Amino acid sequence: MPDVNANISAVDACVIGIDFGTLSGRALVVRVADGAELGSAVHEYRHGVMDTDLAATGRALPPDWALQDPEDYLDVLRAAVPAAVAEAGIAPSQVIGVATDFTACTVLPVLADGTPLCRLTELAYRPHAYAKLWKHHASQPQADRITELARSRGEPWLPRYGGKISAEWQFAKALQLLEEDPDAYRLAQRWIEAADWIIWQLTGTETRNACTAGYKGIFQDGRYPSRDYLAALHPGFAGFADDKLAHPILPLGSRAGSLTARAAGWTGLPAGIAVAVGNVDAHVTPPAANALAPGQMVAIMGTSNCHVMNGSVLAEVPGMCGVVDGGIVAGSWGYEAGQTGVGDIFAWFADHAVPPEYHAQARRRGLTLHELLSEQAASQPPGATGLIALDWLNGNRSVLVDHRLSGAIVGLTLATRAPDIYRALLEATAFGTRVIIDAFEAGGLPVTELVIAGGLMRNEFLMQIYSDVTRRPLHMVASAQAPALGSAIHAAVAAGAYPDVPAAAAAMGRTAAAAYVPDPRAADVYDQLYAEYLLLHDYFGRGANDVMHRLRALRDRVIDEHSADAPPAPDTALAPEAGVRP
Amino acid sequence: MPDVNANISAVDACVIGIDFGTLSGRALVVRVADGAELGSAVHEYRHGVMDTDLAATGRALPPDWALQDPEDYLDVLRAAVPAAVAEAGIAPSQVIGVATDFTACTVLPVLADGTPLCRLTELAYRPHAYAKLWKHHASQPQADRITELARSRGEPWLPRYGGKISAEWQFAKALQLLEEDPDAYRLAQRWIEAADWIIWQLTGTETRNACTAGYKGIFQDGRYPSRDYLAALHPGFAGFADDKLAHPILPLGSRAGSLTARAAGWTGLPAGIAVAVGNVDAHVTPPAANALAPGQMVAIMGTSNCHVMNGSVLAEVPGMCGVVDGGIVAGSWGYEAGQTGVGDIFAWFADHAVPPEYHAQARRRGLTLHELLSEQAASQPPGATGLIALDWLNGNRSVLVDHRLSGAIVGLTLATRAPDIYRALLEATAFGTRVIIDAFEAGGLPVTELVIAGGLMRNEFLMQIYSDVTRRPLHMVASAQAPALGSAIHAAVAAGAYPDVPAAAAAMGRTAAAAYVPDPRAADVYDQLYAEYLLLHDYFGRGANDVMHRLRALRDRVIDEHSADAPPAPDTALAPEAGVRP
Repeated sequence: MPDVNANISAVDACVIGIDFGTLSGRALVVRVADGAELGSAVHEYRHGVMDTDLAATGRALPPDWALQDPEDYLDVLRAAVPAAVAEAGIAPSQVIGVATDFTACTVLPVLADGTPLCRLTELAYRPHAYAKLWKHHASQPQADRITELARSRGEPWLPRYGGKISAEWQFAKALQLLEEDPDAYRLAQRWIEAADWIIWQLTGTETRNACTAGYKGIFQDGRYPSRDYLAALHPGFAGFADDKLAHPILPLGSRAGSLTARAAGWTGLPAGIAVAVGNVDAHVTPPAANALAPGQMVAIMGTSNCHVMNGSVLAEVPGMCGVVDGGIVAGSWGYEAGQTGVGDIFAWFADHAVPPEYHAQARRRGLTLHELLSEQAASQPPGATGLIALDWLNGNRSVLVDHRLSGAIVGLTLATRAPDIYRALLEATAFGTRVIIDAFEAGGLPVTELVIAGGLMRNEFLMQIYSDVTRRPLHMVASAQAPALGSAIHAAVAAGAYPDVPAAAAAMGRTAAAAYVPDPRAADVYDQLYAEYLLLHDYFGRGANDVMHRLRALRDRVIDEHSADAPPAPDTALAPEAGVRP
Repeated sequence: MPDVNANISAVDACVIGIDFGTLSGRALVVRVADGAELGSAVHEYRHGVMDTDLAATGRALPPDWALQDPEDYLDVLRAAVPAAVAEAGIAPSQVIGVATDFTACTVLPVLADGTPLCRLTELAYRPHAYAKLWKHHASQPQADRITELARSRGEPWLPRYGGKISAEWQFAKALQLLEEDPDAYRLAQRWIEAADWIIWQLTGTETRNACTAGYKGIFQDGRYPSRDYLAALHPGFAGFADDKLAHPILPLGSRAGSLTARAAGWTGLPAGIAVAVGNVDAHVTPPAANALAPGQMVAIMGTSNCHVMNGSVLAEVPGMCGVVDGGIVAGSWGYEAGQTGVGDIFAWFADHAVPPEYHAQARRRGLTLHELLSEQAASQPPGATGLIALDWLNGNRSVLVDHRLSGAIVGLTLATRAPDIYRALLEATAFGTRVIIDAFEAGGLPVTELVIAGGLMRNEFLMQIYSDVTRRPLHMVASAQAPALGSAIHAAVAAGAYPDVPAAAAAMGRTAAAAYVPDPRAADVYDQLYAEYLLLHDYFGRGANDVMHRLRALRDRVIDEHSADAPPAPDTALAPEAGVRP
């Protein structure tokens, strides 16, 4: 029985987990005693993802940009939390703690008091003043230099990130800010993950969490990259970590502070309740599956795939996203790897490459297009499509860490049909996951159990492919909103209801064991296809033929040269008036 | 002024060209004096292409089969010829000659009197008794052995075919017949191109033409492959050429005979008029463009591309389809190369990979889907798609001569849209043509002029791409039905109206010169993309990565193993009753 606030019966105590996704935020009310999910609500971000133009000006953004307006995050607190409490039918006074998880690295420039630069009138029209969403990929040139310099100097932290620093992370995005909009860089007194910024809004004080500091902020062995290294990158960047990042790092599940009166007003929750330190959607999920032991790999499958696993030892796996001490749970080495496009790719295909008769048939039969394509693709045995695909339509995170790679399909004939290509894309993402598992095992980290979470769990055909391709049973997290449940578990720990996250996870998290088991005959065919995948993976991904890079560079150049109405470079001139927007 | 039958005014004399295509036959009435096209008519084949099941039985055919019923060809004589004469508004008595052209190698087994085996009741249910259409590709294993044995024995004719004998041609298809249906092979007293069979039906006597004998029948330097070679291929095949092929070979444009009373009854034309020897759709086209000089390459662009060119010298171009003495016009070496999928690939894409909104927009604006996709693809500069494709969805004829290759697309991103892929496929076929031109020039055959014919002439966007990619002006044949016009030119020669084909072509054929000229800036970008195409072409096509072969073999195996209702092997048992079908 958890140890809760004396004024609330242990049976009644609840916590709230808030999961900030790419397009919306979800609040979930969870009973502390057993993890029962009592009610939830979703709030869609008003500005969504700004990847074609900036809402404030309507002006076009360059390719590969992806911004958000942090005001949208506050709206989730104002809308989704009260709605979830109402749906749960509990009294707000039953809530003893709140925790959040966020997409990452989603990062923004703020003043010393946490005010986002984009809230300043004189900066609101400048793209660089906004939050850069995780999938903002325009910092690739900076990321390349960060990696190259670290490699040439033998920086000790580089192997902890699989040998490459991603364009998605804090340093690349900050260096892009400095180089493209130095005024905004100078005005940014802090550079902070949205994961930590939202906690600042809830508690009124800045905190930094071990997860994003480690995975996205290159914080290793108690320090950031050296001033010396940063100065070599760019003279103006020397003080970046000291001036804009440095702050005590708190372990996951610890209490960041108490809910302020202002935040209590937004959420309808009692002021003063516990707020946990920030966390990340993927990393908060293993507790929801009660899968925190070394070797239990949790794959969170949605628009992208994220693979997280605890290890008792420090190993350096080429191409992993990172290994961070306490990155998933305090006291273990947290490993992370990922695939940048999964559900995103399936959605792209359904939206842009499926002829009308499939849409009509799906409507007629009351199926989604994905259900119809899966059904038709499933009617043939593995190997019958004659196709192999590379799942890099959104780049490759693990193990190649290269956002400039692109997708490929080989084996097309005049007899190829939409469900064939759909299947090949599903299979390709499964092969991508197998590459990651193989890399972990080759790196000395056996994967003893594969646990699946995320929205793609619902596609049974896809799940069977993953089981067959990896030759492993799949255990499924037993919650449709695992990140929010994981956050709730952290809230319970922050509130003192459990001594630590593993204890809370044991009481509140759960999986369905071996929900899918591999079919040996299918697995044999997939072994052959996987060998083909690996050949192409290495040919296109490891430099034997850099055609994907060249095609992308050519594309960027000709669009730049030929397009009379090319989108302008982001605004960097300061606006005449100044002040905070209402 | 041509020298025509004394009873007909030279101004009034007409000829008829009949073009037998893949799905239909077209008759064209042409004025002998100047090539004016007076009227035409098309007749669709009742059985079309039998590639999924045999019409006579409804039973499924194995993969890669493509059959036709020769009765459909006779229907063209009965329907299209009278209709064309009627449309022309001429008297049948004005017609002084008839000539035909055909798809090739389309070949059938017949009795000594020309009766197709499929007309025999006891054979009508057997697929091997029918005409094998040019794109019947199920003879690939036989073709491989034919090539391999010729290579190991150093047969002198092999280099004349670019080093490979195609599965599409007479010997591979006949060897498949022998091995899979030996009874039908034995009953086939003659093995004849449809191009020659139709002339047999018009004149009542068997003839063989220099074009198909050379390109499709391995007839070189006055002889077929030796009995010794054929016996080494298969003991039962030793007499194949002597018994089923051998016959005097007539030059193109010569008179095969006179229209029989029976054929006069079918066509409504006067009995006794001249009938030219058989010819092939591609090879009959250069006269229609009056492009018979060495170096004038004519690309006939339709479902597939065929490239034909005369040369004054004998050269051996690796990967060409063939070089034949008098193969295009008597007295010159006729060179042929080809691409197995062009318009077929664009149609595949439009039918199977374009989402509903494009269909709806095309309908709304009264455009074909191809017009809409071309318009949208044309709105971006070359290189902007970021894509490169291999145009092998129907295999590769020149220069790789490998029907088991397949298509590939590289460079896909989440921002890729249907017009981008469409454009990449268009470009890929242009790169394929450039590979062929480069091979000719490297083989010592300069291509001094590029002339375009065929249905794809109408796509201006595609034409500009071909001009840019090849860096050449395009001259366009000035007839929408060039093969039928080319046949008519041969009919005029056979009728004695002109001394030879070049003289008739000069009077009756025509082009629009330099209708498209290359844009140097686009050509520069295409040079870069072509370099990428070549890299992938050689990687996938020349054995560095045989993944396309392996995927196809795996596909065939798993479909065979897993499919409970796999299509049965073609029937080979003789039916109990015998006799000729009515």
